[in-house]
Amino acid sequence: MKLATLNDGTRDGQLAVVARDLKTAHVADGIAPTLQAALDDWGFIAPQLDALYQLLNQGRGQRSFEFDVANCMAPLPRAFQWVSAAAYPLRLELACKARGAAPPESLRGEALMQQGGADAFLGPRQDIALAYEQWGVDFGAGLAAITDDVPMGATADQAHQHIKLLALVNEVVLRNLADDELARGGGLLQARPAAGFAPVALTPDELGDAWKGGKAHLPLRTHWNGKLVGQPHAGVDMVFNFPQLIAHLCRTRNVRAGSIVGSGVVANKDARRGYGCIADKRNLELAADGVAATPFMLFGDSVKIEMLGEDGKSLFGAIEQTLKQIEARRAR
Amino acid sequence: MKLATLNDGTRDGQLAVVARDLKTAHVADGIAPTLQAALDDWGFIAPQLDALYQLLNQGRGQRSFEFDVANCMAPLPRAFQWVSAAAYPLRLELACKARGAAPPESLRGEALMQQGGADAFLGPRQDIALAYEQWGVDFGAGLAAITDDVPMGATADQAHQHIKLLALVNEVVLRNLADDELARGGGLLQARPAAGFAPVALTPDELGDAWKGGKAHLPLRTHWNGKLVGQPHAGVDMVFNFPQLIAHLCRTRNVRAGSIVGSGVVANKDARRGYGCIADKRNLELAADGVAATPFMLFGDSVKIEMLGEDGKSLFGAIEQTLKQIEARRAR
Repeated sequence: MKLATLNDGTRDGQLAVVARDLKTAHVADGIAPTLQAALDDWGFIAPQLDALYQLLNQGRGQRSFEFDVANCMAPLPRAFQWVSAAAYPLRLELACKARGAAPPESLRGEALMQQGGADAFLGPRQDIALAYEQWGVDFGAGLAAITDDVPMGATADQAHQHIKLLALVNEVVLRNLADDELARGGGLLQARPAAGFAPVALTPDELGDAWKGGKAHLPLRTHWNGKLVGQPHAGVDMVFNFPQLIAHLCRTRNVRAGSIVGSGVVANKDARRGYGCIADKRNLELAADGVAATPFMLFGDSVKIEMLGEDGKSLFGAIEQTLKQIEARRAR
Repeated sequence: MKLATLNDGTRDGQLAVVARDLKTAHVADGIAPTLQAALDDWGFIAPQLDALYQLLNQGRGQRSFEFDVANCMAPLPRAFQWVSAAAYPLRLELACKARGAAPPESLRGEALMQQGGADAFLGPRQDIALAYEQWGVDFGAGLAAITDDVPMGATADQAHQHIKLLALVNEVVLRNLADDELARGGGLLQARPAAGFAPVALTPDELGDAWKGGKAHLPLRTHWNGKLVGQPHAGVDMVFNFPQLIAHLCRTRNVRAGSIVGSGVVANKDARRGYGCIADKRNLELAADGVAATPFMLFGDSVKIEMLGEDGKSLFGAIEQTLKQIEARRAR
């Protein structure tokens, strides 16, 4: 089942069911007003949404209309929890290597994960609007799992059953703010502005055999200014799968419905697969040549993030965002 | 104006207006169903809530009833953003001193702030339910500001006007998990379980002259197992006021309605004022004697956090929570 949130002028948007081929959609107004409302009562709501999905795929949706990605908000335009992990720790090892530092031993033992701001996500075609490109604006192609209620202390096996939806994320990071924040010890805050999401969230069964062991075994493709710069395989080198990430999160807390758990940027050891964020490319350059030659995003730059199924068709629809300058209201 | 959220079996509860003396309440069902809904449209909703508040204070609420704190959820039982700052950096300096380390120079220049989990806050009488007291369970008495929409790049002066409500928080921290997480560089996640909130959120004018310069100039009282252990003054030693904290948060993002911005634990240089979290006491002991003698909370321990007005009456109602053991579902 594929779901999207249409911009109807409200903060949470209007839940819609989207056909598998992303060509048509149908408002879910008789079933649940918003995706959060659906997740709040998933056991009851999901079968109704799925019935509508089946009709839509058969061309029998009574009020179906052309699906327009430009009218989509993030599937959850705002959420009660958004954590991002480093499920591909080779990225951190690469970063350490680029700086001539030893990678922390603990990285592979347990997932590194942090809370992020969930009050204002960007839709798939919304600009990344920021005041300064000097902040070192980087895109970041990742996957995320969306849960229903997960009780405190759930094991990874138990957590697996609470993955209700998958989503694609553009985890934007302001790299030139990140180092300072990390040095100060509180995790990233200003360095993590609003994340962008692909139009469709889908149930894991939509991936077919590619959803296995709590991972999506498909490449995640990133285009930067129209050029394919990366297609790392999301199932390779993912050291912590989604159930493990959720188990890590719920160790000391109940995790409630609508929590979004991100994998962090997808990356492969095989450098020929390219990169999902500019920092990875720069760290490779630093390690090889002593100089990071590739600049971060410039105003006007675009990024496209997409995952294709084994049939070559877009699964989630594409994130296509442009970096745009907004007026700096105050001097910093 | 004072507002609370009553437990009606739903996730977001039922918004109620509470009389200034905390004796009676009135459901706001004809005005806004939830506090989030009120904050989403504050300019339109707040005057209506205030009119009901005036009636209630005059004993003229048509369907007023006895206010029962035991039936309260957190004012926002779940929120779209919860950040906690270190607005009293002397606490961090104390922690560094206790370990014989130099305090980072950057601490006083800019606020240290991190995102927290906002999907499941605890009500004022809900147990702090955790699996292991060995995690080093610490209470933490702090204040928080709740905002409406704050545009990216707002100055502190601009941010000031977006503080719509104040709240009292018990920022529970698992100290024995915190050091590991800090060492790994991602900020605190497992070390910050669900925070607890006092029953009432209030508009800043309820503090009268004690709300000045974006700070609450009143002591915050903490009882541990019935004994008053701290009454640090929240207006003294607060290096970053709430408008500055919000300006820090919105530097690179729009901050949306219902964001909760915490001060962190209130602390004074004057050690005679006692402590708002056990870690502060232990750090004093470490610095003085080389040994932290005071243990963290034990199962069955209770904590009470309250702020009294200049008339000696409770402003927000009290947080009164007990640490309770829950079954550890998995061995860790």
